[in-house]
Amino acid sequence: MTAGEGAERLAGARSAYLKQVRADVLAEVARWIPSGGDLDPVLYDLVRDYPFRAAKSLRPALAIATCRALGGSLETVLPSAASLELYHNAFLIHDDVEDGSLLRRDEPTLQAKYGVPIAVNVGDAMLALALRPLLDNTRTAGLGPALRVLEVVVEMSRESAEGQAIELDWIRHRAWDVDEAAYLRMVHKKTTWYSFLAPVEIGAILAGVDDGVREALKAFATALGAAFQVRDDVLNIAGATHLVGKEHAGDLWEGKRTLLVLHALSCATARERERAVMLLDRARPGPGAQGVVKTEEDVAYVLSLLDRYGSVAHASARADAFAGQASAALSALSTVLPSSPHRTFLQSLVSFVVERPS
Amino acid sequence: MTAGEGAERLAGARSAYLKQVRADVLAEVARWIPSGGDLDPVLYDLVRDYPFRAAKSLRPALAIATCRALGGSLETVLPSAASLELYHNAFLIHDDVEDGSLLRRDEPTLQAKYGVPIAVNVGDAMLALALRPLLDNTRTAGLGPALRVLEVVVEMSRESAEGQAIELDWIRHRAWDVDEAAYLRMVHKKTTWYSFLAPVEIGAILAGVDDGVREALKAFATALGAAFQVRDDVLNIAGATHLVGKEHAGDLWEGKRTLLVLHALSCATARERERAVMLLDRARPGPGAQGVVKTEEDVAYVLSLLDRYGSVAHASARADAFAGQASAALSALSTVLPSSPHRTFLQSLVSFVVERPS
Repeated sequence: MTAGEGAERLAGARSAYLKQVRADVLAEVARWIPSGGDLDPVLYDLVRDYPFRAAKSLRPALAIATCRALGGSLETVLPSAASLELYHNAFLIHDDVEDGSLLRRDEPTLQAKYGVPIAVNVGDAMLALALRPLLDNTRTAGLGPALRVLEVVVEMSRESAEGQAIELDWIRHRAWDVDEAAYLRMVHKKTTWYSFLAPVEIGAILAGVDDGVREALKAFATALGAAFQVRDDVLNIAGATHLVGKEHAGDLWEGKRTLLVLHALSCATARERERAVMLLDRARPGPGAQGVVKTEEDVAYVLSLLDRYGSVAHASARADAFAGQASAALSALSTVLPSSPHRTFLQSLVSFVVERPS
Repeated sequence: MTAGEGAERLAGARSAYLKQVRADVLAEVARWIPSGGDLDPVLYDLVRDYPFRAAKSLRPALAIATCRALGGSLETVLPSAASLELYHNAFLIHDDVEDGSLLRRDEPTLQAKYGVPIAVNVGDAMLALALRPLLDNTRTAGLGPALRVLEVVVEMSRESAEGQAIELDWIRHRAWDVDEAAYLRMVHKKTTWYSFLAPVEIGAILAGVDDGVREALKAFATALGAAFQVRDDVLNIAGATHLVGKEHAGDLWEGKRTLLVLHALSCATARERERAVMLLDRARPGPGAQGVVKTEEDVAYVLSLLDRYGSVAHASARADAFAGQASAALSALSTVLPSSPHRTFLQSLVSFVVERPS
């Protein structure tokens, strides 16, 4: 078998695993959202909107795969996996409000459909519902593990809000003098914590493994989260260097701080930096845009800086390095992770980051 | 001692009790908000903003008074009381976003100061922080009571979101055909649950009383919550019938569904109702107001309908009736509530509703 065939087989296994998990998770999510009452059209149909759009359920899959790879059962971890999916969707709803986004998973965002007030409240309702499976854990997973899972989720919620606060503060103060360490800290709090660390740690708690294994798994999740986000930053730009339509390089149109842009700004001359920052701070064209809006020339200028300073290659190398750390952390766990489809899935996530087309 | 002197003494005892509780609660709230790190200016100073503005701490006071009146200790209930205050302030931040409010406790709202995105996130951070004292309860109050308190708080969060969803749905659909039962159900979910029911139930759980006593206390809290809200509705209008400046009758300027307005609309002729609803749906004048804005004549017209149909007297009688129910529920508990400053405080809340100037 060639390396290419191996990668293809891993990709197939990953897709199949995600598909199976998705069905289990959606059934479990549905179980925790009230239905059939007079509040359906007022609230609960809206709560069901985001979670039932096409999505991968990456976070629940990570929790389930970790738990089962360590010998835990699907039944024990499924309620917590559903809770993570509810948290994820609640965060998406509030993020969409905070970013003024109009589309989510190819459909209008909740606030585009119902307005900001209702969207904020639907997110709050989901945050309340997400706690119910975690309380039910006291019955199904035992008191000790249930409480430790709750502690992880409370810390996760705080970390996510901290990460979001850091990014919103940069936007508010038009701060672009953000170094790589500060950017990676924000990513760790805003994304890695709830998307990678918490799922893996919850899976481990519910499998009943000891603290040493949990720490090693956290190292895996921390590296994997950074790898995913930086690879996302790369994919958003790569291929767009010579395509400046509004469907490409969305991060630049949005004016997002990414590893690529921050790298280019740190390499640029004072004059280039001044011009790029001025252009990046311009509003994205669209309904509700205020002040001077960005043009394709503005985006092309920033892309030319990324090109000049090799920022795509730099970020790509960083993503690969994080993926390498994740891979090493997983290998170090081989004695406690016997060969299984669940372990294969965890491995496939690392190769996913390395091999995603860029 | 005359009845007037008795009422005055109760009012004095109530103020003194609230003042004492306030100091304890603020110290405890401060303990659960991180401080001294680099995230203070980005997040935690903003989290501290609302809770440290001038306020009564009614919810913590209710929890503390209930627990101590039943023989529980201040130390046992104080962390949960602080959690309730954090929830209250998180709800206020999100409510202010949802209502587009500019002022809160005589200062600019968080979103007026920092914008909607940051305000939504600060509310989310507070919701996360509010769970920490409740987890700590497992250590200080015992596992069983700690878990029962968590269950109440999760139900409380869901009920609040449901109540808010009902009211936002009325606004979105310009619904004014709301009967008294539907209005009182909304109030029960949106306000009574987290402001009265949860504090009293949590106080009772942490005092370790049996289910029978808890049920009787819930009857007290349910009636008291309705009494408070309907009295608020009355006070917002009373005295304003002949004063139509923008500082008066704020509920009418806002176009809020209240017991008074709904009563007047239900009594009015079809023609009066049609005109009143059209006027009520007009926007409140102010920054960001869209479409036709309300005039003093518009508000005066709705006030004239309240006058014509005796809606203030009707609502006032309803508030008194609820207060009577609350008083009866409290009297029924006299065997388990020995005479104490804590029981006196609970009684003083009932008389507060009846005697507030109207």
